[in-house]
Amino acid sequence: MAHFINDKASAVTDAIDGTIAASGGRLTRLDGYPHIKVVVRSDWDKSRVAIVSGGGSGHEPAHAGFVGAGLLTAAVCGDVFASPSVDAVLAAILAVTGEAGCLLVVKNYTGDRLNFGLAAERARAFGHKVSMVIVDDDVALPDLAQARGVAGTLFVHKIAGAMSEAGADLDAITQTALRIIAETRTIGMSLDTCTIPGSPKEDRIAPGKVELGLGIHGEAGVEQIAYETARQAMTAVVAKLGPTLGDGPHVALLNNLGGLSVLEMAVLSKELLASGMASRIALTVGPASMMTSLDMRGFSVSLLALSGQDAEHLAAPVAPSAWPGCLPVTQAPVLPVPDGLKPIRAMASAHAPTRIFLTDCCETLIAAEADLNALDAKSGDGDTGSTLANAARALITAMDDLPLADHTQLFRAIGQELSQTMGGSSGVLLAIFFAAAGDAASSGYPMREALQAGLRRMQEIGGAKLGDRTMVDALAPALDALEDGPQEAAKAARAGANATASMRRANAGRASYISAEQLDGHTDPGAEAVARLLEHIAA
Amino acid sequence: MAHFINDKASAVTDAIDGTIAASGGRLTRLDGYPHIKVVVRSDWDKSRVAIVSGGGSGHEPAHAGFVGAGLLTAAVCGDVFASPSVDAVLAAILAVTGEAGCLLVVKNYTGDRLNFGLAAERARAFGHKVSMVIVDDDVALPDLAQARGVAGTLFVHKIAGAMSEAGADLDAITQTALRIIAETRTIGMSLDTCTIPGSPKEDRIAPGKVELGLGIHGEAGVEQIAYETARQAMTAVVAKLGPTLGDGPHVALLNNLGGLSVLEMAVLSKELLASGMASRIALTVGPASMMTSLDMRGFSVSLLALSGQDAEHLAAPVAPSAWPGCLPVTQAPVLPVPDGLKPIRAMASAHAPTRIFLTDCCETLIAAEADLNALDAKSGDGDTGSTLANAARALITAMDDLPLADHTQLFRAIGQELSQTMGGSSGVLLAIFFAAAGDAASSGYPMREALQAGLRRMQEIGGAKLGDRTMVDALAPALDALEDGPQEAAKAARAGANATASMRRANAGRASYISAEQLDGHTDPGAEAVARLLEHIAA
Repeated sequence: MAHFINDKASAVTDAIDGTIAASGGRLTRLDGYPHIKVVVRSDWDKSRVAIVSGGGSGHEPAHAGFVGAGLLTAAVCGDVFASPSVDAVLAAILAVTGEAGCLLVVKNYTGDRLNFGLAAERARAFGHKVSMVIVDDDVALPDLAQARGVAGTLFVHKIAGAMSEAGADLDAITQTALRIIAETRTIGMSLDTCTIPGSPKEDRIAPGKVELGLGIHGEAGVEQIAYETARQAMTAVVAKLGPTLGDGPHVALLNNLGGLSVLEMAVLSKELLASGMASRIALTVGPASMMTSLDMRGFSVSLLALSGQDAEHLAAPVAPSAWPGCLPVTQAPVLPVPDGLKPIRAMASAHAPTRIFLTDCCETLIAAEADLNALDAKSGDGDTGSTLANAARALITAMDDLPLADHTQLFRAIGQELSQTMGGSSGVLLAIFFAAAGDAASSGYPMREALQAGLRRMQEIGGAKLGDRTMVDALAPALDALEDGPQEAAKAARAGANATASMRRANAGRASYISAEQLDGHTDPGAEAVARLLEHIAA
Repeated sequence: MAHFINDKASAVTDAIDGTIAASGGRLTRLDGYPHIKVVVRSDWDKSRVAIVSGGGSGHEPAHAGFVGAGLLTAAVCGDVFASPSVDAVLAAILAVTGEAGCLLVVKNYTGDRLNFGLAAERARAFGHKVSMVIVDDDVALPDLAQARGVAGTLFVHKIAGAMSEAGADLDAITQTALRIIAETRTIGMSLDTCTIPGSPKEDRIAPGKVELGLGIHGEAGVEQIAYETARQAMTAVVAKLGPTLGDGPHVALLNNLGGLSVLEMAVLSKELLASGMASRIALTVGPASMMTSLDMRGFSVSLLALSGQDAEHLAAPVAPSAWPGCLPVTQAPVLPVPDGLKPIRAMASAHAPTRIFLTDCCETLIAAEADLNALDAKSGDGDTGSTLANAARALITAMDDLPLADHTQLFRAIGQELSQTMGGSSGVLLAIFFAAAGDAASSGYPMREALQAGLRRMQEIGGAKLGDRTMVDALAPALDALEDGPQEAAKAARAGANATASMRRANAGRASYISAEQLDGHTDPGAEAVARLLEHIAA
C-alpha cells in the first residue's frame, strides 16, 4: 500500500521537519540527523523541570506533536517503532536540563527502558538531576508482569507538563507521575492492522472480527472477538477496563489509533459516554489522534482515577494543538425546534378573475405534459412535463385555500404550494422564485419588477445564467419585454425558448451532464413551458 | 469493510450525540431527530450575527465540530453526503438568528444551494435578515462554471466567526465572506477512495496511481497520475494551484481527507512548506482533519490571498478544538548537539593488582564461552557466551586506558566500555549496573553497597525481579552474602544460578517469550556466568 512519504529512510525526519515547519517557530530540533532526532521547545530557558519523552516513531502526534508550553519540553524520536539511541536521549537531556532537573517519561518497552535508562545514568554522571518513570497502562494482558505503555502516557505528559509550567520541583512532579501511572488503565481495539511503510500488510484480523487488547506496534491483540456494532465493541472494551478501576471520578481519554474517520470516533465517543462506565467519567480528553499506530483502524480508551490537582492540571492551557483539551462531562439541554417550520398560511380569499387566470395557466401546463416530456427525454429523464402538470393539478386542487384576493400574499402561497408538491430542484427553484417575488411585491414593487426580483434570486441560488439552456432563457427576456405588454413578452419568451435548441452547452441543471452533441437541436423543456404559458396568456 | 458505527441509519445522529457529549456542555442540538439534525452553541444569546453552515455529513469535524465561540453558531447536518432539508436549515436559522441577522455559508452543491436558499427565503418571510454565500474554492475543474466547495470553506467559517465574535454587522461579514471566497483556491489528492458505510468499496484508483482534483463525496478526480513520492505528489498539487494565485502573502490550509496517518500529514506539511509555493505562504492552518471525506487516504491544500484583517481574524482564539490554529511560517534556528555525548574518559592509571584481578575475571568469562552459548541455545539464540566473551576480550584490550588506580572511576569506565562493545540489552544493563555502582561509590558507599545500588538501578530499568530467571537470581544473593566473604558470595551465586533451572517462568528478557516447558531444567546463562565468575574469584 502506498503512503505519502518520500522513502522509508527519511519518513521520520521528514515528518519531524514538517511538524517543526508548521509549528509557527515554537519548535526546533537538535542538529544530528539522522541519528539524533530530538524536537525541543524553541522558547525553553531551563528555568523549570524539563519533561522529556519519546520512543519509536509511528505514534504521531506523539511525541513531537506534544512538545510545547504546558506539555513536553523535548521529544526523542526513534525510527518507526524502534527506540531512539542512548546518545539521542542523552542529547535531549543535556539540551534542556538546568538546575531544576529533568523527568523522563518512558513507555514500558525494553528498548526504551534501556536506552532512556542508560542515558539517564550518563546525564547523572554530569551532575544533572534526572528521574525516570515508566508508563505501563495497558491492561490487555493482566498477568503479564511488564504491561505496555500506550495512550495513557498522555495523562503523564499533560499533568507533569502542567506542574512544570507552574514551577513544581522534580520530586513533586516525579511522585505525581508515579501516582498517575499507578492509576491509569488503557485498552485498545482495532478492525485492522496498521500498514508499516515499506512492509507488507499483515492480514491478521478476519472480516467480521475485531481485535481487543492490541498494542501500538502492530503486535497482535489478546483476542479476536466477533464485531457487530460500535456499541457492542465499546461494551467489550468497557468490560475489560471496568474491573481494573477503583471508585471515584475518572478522566477518559479516547484515542484514534490513526485510521478511523472522525465520524467513527464521534460515534465511539457517544458509546463510551453512554456505556456502563459513563457514571464514573467526570472529564473527557478527545476523541482525537494522540498516540497512534500509523494508520491503524482502531481506538483506545484510557482511564485515570482523578485525585489531587489532576483535573486542574489536565485543564491547564497548552501550546500544542495536538492536545484536544480536557472537558467536563455535562450535557446542555436539548433545545425545542423553533416555531415557524410550518409556513404561515395566508388567509384564503376569493377573487374570481384571479381564479380563472390561474386555473387557465394550470390547464395550459397540463395540456403540454406529453410534449414537454418528449422534449425532456432528449436531455434528461423525460419527466419535466409530468412534474409541471402534477404541480398544476395540485395548485388547482388547492385553489380554495389560496389568498386569491391578495396578490402579494398569493406569490408566497404559490411558492409554498410548489415547494411541497413539486419536489426536486425545479420545485425548490420555483418556490424560491415565487417567495422572492412575493417579498418584493410586499415591499411595494410593481408586478413586473417583483417577478424580476424573484428571477434574480432564483438565478443566484440555482446558478443558471442566460445562455445556460434553462427556463431562464425564456423567462428573463419575457419579463424584460413585459413592459411592452403580454404579446411582446410572449414573443420574447418564444424567441428565447427556441434559442435554447442551438445552445451548445448546459452549465446548470441536469442537462449539464449531457454532451453538447446530444443536446443540439432540442429546445429546453423548461424554457418551452414558459413560452407556451406566455403565448397562451397573450392569446 | 466494517466501520465503528451502529448502523447506517443512526451513524450521523450517533456521531452528533458523541460530538455534543464530548463538548463539555458547549454544544447542544435542536430536538427533531432524525429529520432535523442541527448542532448549536449552548451559550448563544443572538446578540451578534449568527454564522450557520452545514451540508451532508461524512466531512467531520465539519461542520458540527466547528460550532463554538469564534467559529460557527450552528451546523445543519444532512445524512452522509446528502444535503439537509429546507426544514432543518430553517430550524437552525430560526433558532439562532436575532436582530443582528444570520450568514449562511453554503458549499456549492445543487442540493445545498437549493435547500439553504429556500430556507433563507422562508426565514426572510419571518422578517429575519439572512444573507447567504456560496463557496466554490475547488480549482480541479477550471472550466466548470460551478466549482465545488471544499476545505477552503474553513477560511470563511473562521474569518466570519471571528468578525461575528468581534461584533461586526451582517453586511460587513457578508462582504468579507464574498471576498474570502473569491480569493480561496483548493485542490485535493488521494491514494484511495473513501469507504461509505453500508456501500461497497470502489476500487477506482489503481496501485501506483494517485487521483488529483477529487471532491469530498467519493466522486472521481480530474485525473489519475503516477504516484512516486510525497514530494512528487505535492509538486503536482502545487502546479495546479500556482497558476490560480495572485501575488502577495497567502495562508495555506493542509487538510487530511480522513484516512492519512498523522505521520504522512507531517511529511506533506514539510513538502508543502519546501515547495515552489513556499515563498507565498505566510501562515499555515494544520495539518489536521478538517473537511474530511470519511476515511479517504488523501489530503487537500487550500490557499487564501491575505488582505485586510484576515490574519488577525484567522489567529483569533476559538472554542472548538477541531480548529488547529493559524500560525506564522517562521523557523527557529536548529540547535547544536550539546557537548558531552562522548563520555568523559577518566584519566588512565596503572594499578597492578587491579589489572591482574580484572584480567583474570575476563579470562574466566572467555573460558566459559562455549558452555554459556550451549545453555543459551536452550532458551535463546545461543550467543550469551560469545557476547560476554567478546566484551571480556574488549576489556582486556582497553586495560591500558582504564583508571585502574581509582576504583570509583573504574566502575563507570567499565560501564562505558561495556555499553560500547557489548551492544544489545545485556550490554546496556551491565553499563547501567556499573554506572550506578560508580555513582554510589563516588558518593562514599563501600564496594558491596555500591554494587547493590548498581543492581537496584539495573533491576529498575530492566524490570527483572528475583525469580525471573535472569542473572539477578545469582547476583542479588551473592551481593547479600558478600558481607560474609567471597566464598559465601560464590556459594550464594551458585545456589541462585542452579535455582533458575527450575523456575517455571521468565518474566523479563528474551526468555519471557519461551514456554515454561522449554525452559525447564536449564540454568539461565546469565546467572551461570555470574556464578562461575564468583566461584573463580573465591577459589
